[in-house]
Amino acid sequence: MFESIHFRSVGRKTTSASDPAVIESLRAIVGADNVVIDPERVEPYGADAVKEKFPPEAVVFPATTAEVSAILRLANERLFPVTARGGGVGYTGGAVPIDGGIVVGTDRMNKIIEINVDDLYAVCQPGITTFTLQKAAEEKGLMFAPDPASYKDSFIGGNIAENAGGMRTPKYGVTKHHVLGLEVVTAAGNIIRTGGKTVKNVVGFDLTGLMCGSEGMLGIITEATLKLLPMPEATSTVRANFRSMESACKVLTKFTPYGLLPMAMEVIDKFCVAAVEENYAFGLSKDAEAILLVAVDGSREEVGKNAELIERVIAENGGFDIIRARSSEEEDKLWDVRRAISPSLMKYGTLKINEDVVVPRSRVPELVARIEEIGRKHDTFVANFGHAGDGNIHVNFVVDREDRSAVARARECVSEVFRLSVDLGGTISGEHGIGYVKAAYLDYAVDRPTLDIMKGIKTVFDPNGILNPGKMFD
Amino acid sequence: MFESIHFRSVGRKTTSASDPAVIESLRAIVGADNVVIDPERVEPYGADAVKEKFPPEAVVFPATTAEVSAILRLANERLFPVTARGGGVGYTGGAVPIDGGIVVGTDRMNKIIEINVDDLYAVCQPGITTFTLQKAAEEKGLMFAPDPASYKDSFIGGNIAENAGGMRTPKYGVTKHHVLGLEVVTAAGNIIRTGGKTVKNVVGFDLTGLMCGSEGMLGIITEATLKLLPMPEATSTVRANFRSMESACKVLTKFTPYGLLPMAMEVIDKFCVAAVEENYAFGLSKDAEAILLVAVDGSREEVGKNAELIERVIAENGGFDIIRARSSEEEDKLWDVRRAISPSLMKYGTLKINEDVVVPRSRVPELVARIEEIGRKHDTFVANFGHAGDGNIHVNFVVDREDRSAVARARECVSEVFRLSVDLGGTISGEHGIGYVKAAYLDYAVDRPTLDIMKGIKTVFDPNGILNPGKMFD
Repeated sequence: MFESIHFRSVGRKTTSASDPAVIESLRAIVGADNVVIDPERVEPYGADAVKEKFPPEAVVFPATTAEVSAILRLANERLFPVTARGGGVGYTGGAVPIDGGIVVGTDRMNKIIEINVDDLYAVCQPGITTFTLQKAAEEKGLMFAPDPASYKDSFIGGNIAENAGGMRTPKYGVTKHHVLGLEVVTAAGNIIRTGGKTVKNVVGFDLTGLMCGSEGMLGIITEATLKLLPMPEATSTVRANFRSMESACKVLTKFTPYGLLPMAMEVIDKFCVAAVEENYAFGLSKDAEAILLVAVDGSREEVGKNAELIERVIAENGGFDIIRARSSEEEDKLWDVRRAISPSLMKYGTLKINEDVVVPRSRVPELVARIEEIGRKHDTFVANFGHAGDGNIHVNFVVDREDRSAVARARECVSEVFRLSVDLGGTISGEHGIGYVKAAYLDYAVDRPTLDIMKGIKTVFDPNGILNPGKMFD
Repeated sequence: MFESIHFRSVGRKTTSASDPAVIESLRAIVGADNVVIDPERVEPYGADAVKEKFPPEAVVFPATTAEVSAILRLANERLFPVTARGGGVGYTGGAVPIDGGIVVGTDRMNKIIEINVDDLYAVCQPGITTFTLQKAAEEKGLMFAPDPASYKDSFIGGNIAENAGGMRTPKYGVTKHHVLGLEVVTAAGNIIRTGGKTVKNVVGFDLTGLMCGSEGMLGIITEATLKLLPMPEATSTVRANFRSMESACKVLTKFTPYGLLPMAMEVIDKFCVAAVEENYAFGLSKDAEAILLVAVDGSREEVGKNAELIERVIAENGGFDIIRARSSEEEDKLWDVRRAISPSLMKYGTLKINEDVVVPRSRVPELVARIEEIGRKHDTFVANFGHAGDGNIHVNFVVDREDRSAVARARECVSEVFRLSVDLGGTISGEHGIGYVKAAYLDYAVDRPTLDIMKGIKTVFDPNGILNPGKMFD
């Protein structure tokens, strides 16, 4: 869906990875069938959801940690770039080999090693989708809480490397809050083990936390121990219309006095509503300047009581056309509007630039109002929706991809939105990461001394800079 | 209460920190009143709960980040050790200047800068107790969830530096799960800013997570942005006796099918029960081989329903003498037994060695049984209690401090317990950290390549090794 404003599409770069001796060595490590060099077959591994193409010289599919280690030893000796790739559906190019070299696909490392019901953890390899893990946990009455929208396609390794977010963050936090331990191969091929199987663990520096969100620049994750939770008995969703974005967002804070932190709180602006309505005719009110979705989970009784409370609070605070799902089918239907946004917005142009800024949640109305101003100033269509409960808003500028001036204006809008987010006490990415797409803006949010520390840490894990070069600050 | 088996008590070491020119510079930075060099007055800053004495050459009390920065610039130039100190009540010597140099006391950096009710965060300086922060949050209807037992004495800066645990971990996690952002001064005096005010933030490496539990070895925390939660309406506790530790611990896993994760689950073994009963005559049953305490929080209705469920599950699984608190006073009384353990155990000897190993919670019965064996083998009294819900057990070996052979045997016990914990899939510290007390055992739990990465990270933040030398792996 998403397409970038960068339009970079270099040819296949050549590094020492293309040396026939290197290819032979890679074949010796993982087996000839698991090294792909055919230009057509490597091409899909040169892009992610950004849809720019940077084909690798080879794609290698290891099956074991020892094979990953051997690959990295070779790369570190011959100095060619290595980019780890999970599902390849990221929004900032984290899995894309922009400097050539090889892609290490974790597709074959796809085992769930253990689901421990008594001790509430799972051990798995990186190459399964988050959906697969969630289903496996669910079968045992457990929940893996992180739920990025990409969960059916993104791999758990990539979710950890990107510290993926999602809808349930208000109650459950982000991916890093659910990672107990990791096995990681560093650039030199050394295997390190971080954390363990317990939530409490204060033995040495917390390398687990550091690996989460490190975007494949510090090592390749080869195994993860993840925290599971008892599966809540029920969920419920309430949807309502509001006459302004401000009044919709004001509601977010009104549950606190009741001791309630909803699982998800999503907001949709009037432009999204109009686009969705035009495409799908959900029958949404023309008076709706914003839509709010609030979901809770827990025991059946608790969920019923909380959904009632949410309805009441919404009604007291300017919400109208309030609908509560009475079944999981009805719940699913309430969310259809949210899911219809992205495709609907494409009617405004052929290029949709989707950013994911984040601000303290009370600043969302101001953020959205000022983003609209920025759009008007640069004559660019913009629509906002997203995870209002944690302040993480998806800002969508939609233009015609052939109109160079429009694309340039959109680029200017993005830059202004990033500055605005930082000014409002937030930052330039809530859940998509930096990759190469936002690298130019990193210094809006991170100052020089902090960046220097990050660069120092990079050197500790990867002295020769072979892991995912060209990303973040590289 | 805790005393160590190390008995080290060196005299005052001398480094360049004692140079009159350095003392003058320190006075110029923080004001003469805020530099203490009088031997009697510095002595209390040379020990923590371990009660070994390593008096610093000076204690310096900065009031601002700029002052901390100036102090560290000076130390890094003149190469004297700097140990940050919060409440000074740690169990592993993290705040103790074992190599001399200066102690930086954060006592004057004791402001709560902001409590943001709408956005659910607090910004504070490091020198307030966790209790102070909890009370300030409570006044606004919010909760700061981490609750180490030391919360009335330990400072928030120390809790972050040690990644403190506590009782509420099963539901709420540990300190690091509640830190959104930090301001930190590195060894060279550079001020870095990690994270931010939002839960979602994927902009650069997660230095916030890395700082949590870094034991003052990477930098001095000068400001913290902490996550707050809506204050739950009610709590309730159920206490019950069991005929074996095993049956008590088996109950821990029985709440999962109901989608329930209690806030706290604490276990007390028969030796603790006997000691407490002898000292306080609570009227505990002689048949109790173990006591289990289970606490829940939430809305009043939910808590009532869950407490009933807990009573039923306990009764179905071998619990007897089940008591449920009907008021907060009654609840407090139920916890009195837990609080009475530490003082009661002192009747078995003058030296109590309190370790805090952690294993996956289903392994707690085996852990405790084998710890008892280790005690018998080395003719050493041992009693166990602690946070069974997260597998974090406080192992207490009690001996006569004058009996050198008994102390040596206890030391052997500790070493065997650490190996056992690792063998059972756990580790050597759940919440106390490594400091200098457990440094000799670090390699039981952390392998060489992982340790090398930690050492590399240390060098990035502190190339000259001035921050808290002699701790962890140093």
